[in-house]
Amino acid sequence: MKRLLISVIILFSGYFVTQGQAQPKATWIWFPGDYELWLHKEVSLRRTERSAFYPAFFRVDTHYGAINFKKEFTLSQPEEIEIKTTGRFNVKIDSQYYPEHTDRLKIPAGKHSISIDIANYDTVPCLYVKGTILVSDSSWRVSCYNTQWIPAAFGDYNCIDASPVNFRFNFSEISPVKTENINSNILLDFGKETFGYLRLKGIKGTGEVKICYGESREEALSPDSCETYDRIIITKDSSASYTLKSSKALRFAYVLPSKNVTISNCSFITESLPLTQKGKFRCSNDKLNKIWDVSAYTLSLTTREFMLDGIKRDRWLWAGDAIQSFLMNYYLFFDTDVNRRSIIAERGKDPVEAHINHIVDYSYYWFLSIYDFYLYTGDASLIKMMYPKMLTMMDFCATRLNKNNFIVGRTSDWIYLDWADMNKEGELSAYQVLYARSLETLAACAKIMNDTENANKYSILATDMKARTLQLFWNDNLHALVHNRKNDKQINYVTRYSNMFALMYGYLDEKKSEDVKKHVLMNDSVQSITTPYMRFYELAALCEIGEHKYVVNEMLNYWGGMLDLGATTFWEVYNPKEKGTQHLAMYGRPYGRSLCHAWGASPVYLLGKYYLGVQPKSAGYKSWMCEPHLGGLDWLEGSVPTPFGNIDLSISKTVIKIKSMQQGGTLKFRSSKTPKTNRGNVADLGNNVFELKVDMPDSEYMIKYVNAE
Amino acid sequence: MKRLLISVIILFSGYFVTQGQAQPKATWIWFPGDYELWLHKEVSLRRTERSAFYPAFFRVDTHYGAINFKKEFTLSQPEEIEIKTTGRFNVKIDSQYYPEHTDRLKIPAGKHSISIDIANYDTVPCLYVKGTILVSDSSWRVSCYNTQWIPAAFGDYNCIDASPVNFRFNFSEISPVKTENINSNILLDFGKETFGYLRLKGIKGTGEVKICYGESREEALSPDSCETYDRIIITKDSSASYTLKSSKALRFAYVLPSKNVTISNCSFITESLPLTQKGKFRCSNDKLNKIWDVSAYTLSLTTREFMLDGIKRDRWLWAGDAIQSFLMNYYLFFDTDVNRRSIIAERGKDPVEAHINHIVDYSYYWFLSIYDFYLYTGDASLIKMMYPKMLTMMDFCATRLNKNNFIVGRTSDWIYLDWADMNKEGELSAYQVLYARSLETLAACAKIMNDTENANKYSILATDMKARTLQLFWNDNLHALVHNRKNDKQINYVTRYSNMFALMYGYLDEKKSEDVKKHVLMNDSVQSITTPYMRFYELAALCEIGEHKYVVNEMLNYWGGMLDLGATTFWEVYNPKEKGTQHLAMYGRPYGRSLCHAWGASPVYLLGKYYLGVQPKSAGYKSWMCEPHLGGLDWLEGSVPTPFGNIDLSISKTVIKIKSMQQGGTLKFRSSKTPKTNRGNVADLGNNVFELKVDMPDSEYMIKYVNAE
Repeated sequence: MKRLLISVIILFSGYFVTQGQAQPKATWIWFPGDYELWLHKEVSLRRTERSAFYPAFFRVDTHYGAINFKKEFTLSQPEEIEIKTTGRFNVKIDSQYYPEHTDRLKIPAGKHSISIDIANYDTVPCLYVKGTILVSDSSWRVSCYNTQWIPAAFGDYNCIDASPVNFRFNFSEISPVKTENINSNILLDFGKETFGYLRLKGIKGTGEVKICYGESREEALSPDSCETYDRIIITKDSSASYTLKSSKALRFAYVLPSKNVTISNCSFITESLPLTQKGKFRCSNDKLNKIWDVSAYTLSLTTREFMLDGIKRDRWLWAGDAIQSFLMNYYLFFDTDVNRRSIIAERGKDPVEAHINHIVDYSYYWFLSIYDFYLYTGDASLIKMMYPKMLTMMDFCATRLNKNNFIVGRTSDWIYLDWADMNKEGELSAYQVLYARSLETLAACAKIMNDTENANKYSILATDMKARTLQLFWNDNLHALVHNRKNDKQINYVTRYSNMFALMYGYLDEKKSEDVKKHVLMNDSVQSITTPYMRFYELAALCEIGEHKYVVNEMLNYWGGMLDLGATTFWEVYNPKEKGTQHLAMYGRPYGRSLCHAWGASPVYLLGKYYLGVQPKSAGYKSWMCEPHLGGLDWLEGSVPTPFGNIDLSISKTVIKIKSMQQGGTLKFRSSKTPKTNRGNVADLGNNVFELKVDMPDSEYMIKYVNAE
Repeated sequence: MKRLLISVIILFSGYFVTQGQAQPKATWIWFPGDYELWLHKEVSLRRTERSAFYPAFFRVDTHYGAINFKKEFTLSQPEEIEIKTTGRFNVKIDSQYYPEHTDRLKIPAGKHSISIDIANYDTVPCLYVKGTILVSDSSWRVSCYNTQWIPAAFGDYNCIDASPVNFRFNFSEISPVKTENINSNILLDFGKETFGYLRLKGIKGTGEVKICYGESREEALSPDSCETYDRIIITKDSSASYTLKSSKALRFAYVLPSKNVTISNCSFITESLPLTQKGKFRCSNDKLNKIWDVSAYTLSLTTREFMLDGIKRDRWLWAGDAIQSFLMNYYLFFDTDVNRRSIIAERGKDPVEAHINHIVDYSYYWFLSIYDFYLYTGDASLIKMMYPKMLTMMDFCATRLNKNNFIVGRTSDWIYLDWADMNKEGELSAYQVLYARSLETLAACAKIMNDTENANKYSILATDMKARTLQLFWNDNLHALVHNRKNDKQINYVTRYSNMFALMYGYLDEKKSEDVKKHVLMNDSVQSITTPYMRFYELAALCEIGEHKYVVNEMLNYWGGMLDLGATTFWEVYNPKEKGTQHLAMYGRPYGRSLCHAWGASPVYLLGKYYLGVQPKSAGYKSWMCEPHLGGLDWLEGSVPTPFGNIDLSISKTVIKIKSMQQGGTLKFRSSKTPKTNRGNVADLGNNVFELKVDMPDSEYMIKYVNAE
């Protein structure tokens, strides 16, 4: 009953105006969230395994197939409107239906109501109404006939002839950097990883052409085990040029025409999201600069309709992968639309029957990503839109509490955490920490929603969860949280996961933080992490405790190791101990590994957040911190995007320069002598730590100091 | 937590094998319930208002767009299989994908697993696999990727080339019984109400043809206000014969060709569900026979993919209308498939956000219809399939309890009950009675599911609801349940609704039953009922208290009144006080009334259940009663279908004959002298009431007696 009341409040407060303020001009409108779900359905169905269609193995919900838009309006003079939709529709004005297919009509002056039903169970129903006064925008209300009416959603689709069902990409034609003839077949090398559609030109003869794609040369040259291939039939009616229909990720393509077919040359049509690289980074180490560049390129390829895991294989939206992409995005493109689309799509519709992507941890990351969105963008609309679904998701998560009130996996739950071998029995400490953090997040969101009752409820649950986790998983002899408990007893086994999460979330006191640093994170006898995925958190945690120099070396070794092996994008897994084609294999398949994987791009996040050192302190950078760290480098410089524009920074051992369009900044740094500034006053916090308020917009602050990291 | 456990039990008990036993032969299979939801979506989108598309105003859910079938099997020798689906699919054998479009493949001998994904968000994904040993049937398991696997569902679609997405109808071409030329237009009269597609023949010229359809002559002759019309364009390329694409209900069609178009003649292609009229009824009154015939014809037209309300206008599935059609069906066609399809479709998918059809009462009828299905067919599979959804539906209903723990309507709920004018404020007694009955029903279903905890819970809630309703709504001065309570006080106002329901459900003691009979049901000063819809319950209640003679007269007057006005099918509303074209109007439109409305066909139910007097006493007629009543007629005879075949009966004032394929019957009748029988022994129950066990199958029992009703 309580839940119900909250929903009603949400609806009537117009909380669902999710994408900015009402527009004066006509724009395409739809049912909030449905565009994202439909697009996610389309994307999820695009994966192939070899040539076979391979749908997602989690439930992929789509849009409501029939919806009703309505609006009341007053015209001071008659006007003609034009109607366009993406489905079968009708028009009713003042309760009177117009004949089917009426797409232009005149409305007399006066007060009116208009209702338009649209049905399309395959493609999301969208509406465009173009009049003088009456235009489709978020002032229309929409319902899926569930008795509730909410403001229509819209995006950046304002032209009547370009409906949102044609997702906007950039296309560009590129040529191979190298073409090799091998046994009368053609091997194309496009020089680096790319995504799009191969084009065959000068096709002659009849027969078939098989095209094997490869992120590596070895993969392309393996028709029997490349992860993706196409086969096309050439008849006498075929045209001389053919562009493949399905998009592929590749660096190499191996084109195998049958005996009577010849192809004169090939090109490639790249397909990419229009993105602006707002974040910038340069430093005194060229390899680190290359790591940042390749990370940025990797992320630009995986940032598409959604934040995809990788572009060759799954091409799916995985909440655990995506939360890292979101954070990288805040430091690189600051494209908030793709983050929003992804967070909406991950959750699907009610009822919740399984964890997000079926993975226990991924449900928790989903909660966290919603608050991140608010923190980085200052836009509370996503919380407001998703809040009812956060509550039902948390209800589901609570069904996974055992008799000790600790989270466990049920039979149908995928206990993932990382690809590494690890014990997954009983109560995993990492899950308790992530669950506690989710509860905290939900409490914070409830507060934003003015839902005091739930804010209190989830705050109490979070506090209790944290306390019991520390009480029952902390081991004084091991100086760490143990990995898991089984039969109500600690297992004498430590991994990095829960310890680094607890450290990052501030769950450990000073003593325990030091313990974790020494006995876990900087302890080589604790199993090392071999996915860039978990290195993201590991290295972030090390930065949180001031190990910037150590982390720079880790980056140079780990990501630098991939570069040394010729990587043009960063990988799903990199294990320095592997050799040769071992680096290409995964899942028991010789080329199973994804060589362009979003979670490989974390340096753009780490370098932005912990070296340029910029992060929001309150939602949307209303207040923000800059704590730059050289981490052993001579200098570094760059930009961090915010909702108010970039924060530009450079730092050497003796000079820091910072400029921001937004006040509310605090620059914090260590100097062995009293610094001097051209603006404002440097406050001495003691212990060589100094602070300067950066309050004058668009003005460079220059500080002379002596670096004392 | 409790709910979750129950679901798990259900899944693992294989309860979802819903449609009979496993088939040895290949058959089309699908995700349980999804075929029905998809078909319902298709049907719901078919309504037009005039020529405009008119979707249902309640949420119409459809199938899961992507599903996965799997099976483990062993072959003693290799075999080839053929695969056909209704969507994009893949095949994986022993975890190895076959290339896309593989629809024939050879499987070696041995133990294997097969997995087939199918995706189609518009049309329900169905699968047919044709091998020797490996065939698609209910031994396959299916999932919508929600971590749960259930046995696949199937129906009577066994041919690889006839998938279930082509719903099977009978088609027949008929000619008009009369053709009139009016102002160079053509008025066709097909003699009686029918459903299907008009065919124009001998078309010449170019221009357009408008066709106005009418259930009445007046409607067809009103191009500006007929409820449905079509407009087709004739070009020089048009063929000489054209069959309209969209189905229509009509008796009359008015064909208006434009100036340069001529049409030589027309016919009509009727479309109907293949149905066998198993129930039979004849009696000494010809008008009553005609009433039964027209009722049966009405029901044959509205019994289609689902139990539709009427065939001209809504063509929708309304749970309140449908429960009556289901009951009529048990006495006429005994087509259990259409009842099952309808009950599944009404409920849609979770989450429940509104009452079924948005109508408070319709949610309750839905519960009742599920138990009716079990009672009449003996098939518990529908309960087993719908049980989790019954629980969530009841959770929703409970959100409508007010502080007094009585059901009220919320803003978004449609408080319908009947079309009659009535006070709908506060707590309606009828809703409390229907809610109590729903709770009882759910308790009974929980018991069948061996869910003791919920059986007890809902049984206690039902008992409490009944007791409080009688305590707080019964008025000793009015000798009745008052219609409603407002601000915790009874309103001094009595209607028939709650009283007849309470009487039928056995909620009233003998004294109160007598009171209701005298002061409500047989009291002309209590507002009379003018829809056949509520007359169904009113007349059934009167029969329950022995007023068979009175009810025969009511039927002759009420349904006979429609026949006197030329009805060829029975109507949505009949008010004997109306005149002429008033009978055609409704909803403020001159021809808004439906003249072929399922709820108009209730005589087939009333005459079967209360005059032939046959009804199941335990599920599926394992035991049954026959209490025949002449109701003032000289004789009557007929048949009532059961899962075991017909029960045939004739009764005059001196002889009763009964024959059944099923034992377990009890014949009960009143005789003023001791009866004689050719079989078995008549037991004297006193007060002229006698009973005879009908235990010998396929054998006529003949009883000589003297009728003493």
